[in-house]
Amino acid sequence: MGTAAEIVAAYWAAANDRDWAGFGDLLADDVVYEGPQTRERVRGRDPYLRFNIEGFPGDWHLEVVRIVGDGEHGASWIQFTNADGSVQPGLCFFDIDGQGRITRITDFWPDPYDLPAQRAHLVERY
Amino acid sequence: MGTAAEIVAAYWAAANDRDWAGFGDLLADDVVYEGPQTRERVRGRDPYLRFNIEGFPGDWHLEVVRIVGDGEHGASWIQFTNADGSVQPGLCFFDIDGQGRITRITDFWPDPYDLPAQRAHLVERY
Repeated sequence: MGTAAEIVAAYWAAANDRDWAGFGDLLADDVVYEGPQTRERVRGRDPYLRFNIEGFPGDWHLEVVRIVGDGEHGASWIQFTNADGSVQPGLCFFDIDGQGRITRITDFWPDPYDLPAQRAHLVERY
Repeated sequence: MGTAAEIVAAYWAAANDRDWAGFGDLLADDVVYEGPQTRERVRGRDPYLRFNIEGFPGDWHLEVVRIVGDGEHGASWIQFTNADGSVQPGLCFFDIDGQGRITRITDFWPDPYDLPAQRAHLVERY
């Protein structure tokens, strides 16, 4: 059984490779996925596999920017490249059980927004 | 010197308490803050203190949902409540040096968005 960081790394590697058997092996039977921005939820390994396979078609790929793991918790920051070449960061938090299976996934997909005028004089742009 | 998780917890506690002296003590002299959504950057402890003090006025408060720490890396998920009562998640990644000071902060503020029709049949809403 791997560390939390190894399990999260394996999760993203399997997703990027469309290795859905390997991806499923990382999940608890009763895994719960939540996307707080849309208030969407998926319960259970098979529905969550279907969500990934059918919900995100197309030739996307992803790169891991950072993984942090600590006991039964993990966090990741990825760069997700859509089929059209657009790139978006994805932030994800994981709970992992004593058997090394992922029980909870919460992910976030932040979009660009305009810099508020109130702090424009306090920053540089890049 | 604390663990990465302790340092990240102290960072958010100091921010929430407006304990800017304690907050500053957690930062490396050459700390770099980046907000990828607006492509804003702040370099250095004093400019970053000013950014926090002047850039975010008002009676906001925050609660930590999750902190994950691993060696010289940390991640946090907070709920930020604005003065008007609106609540937003904030996701933040930290680099911490060998002296236990924060050298890099990258944070993300995801907004709600409409559930894509392509996966609507694969999820429940909450």
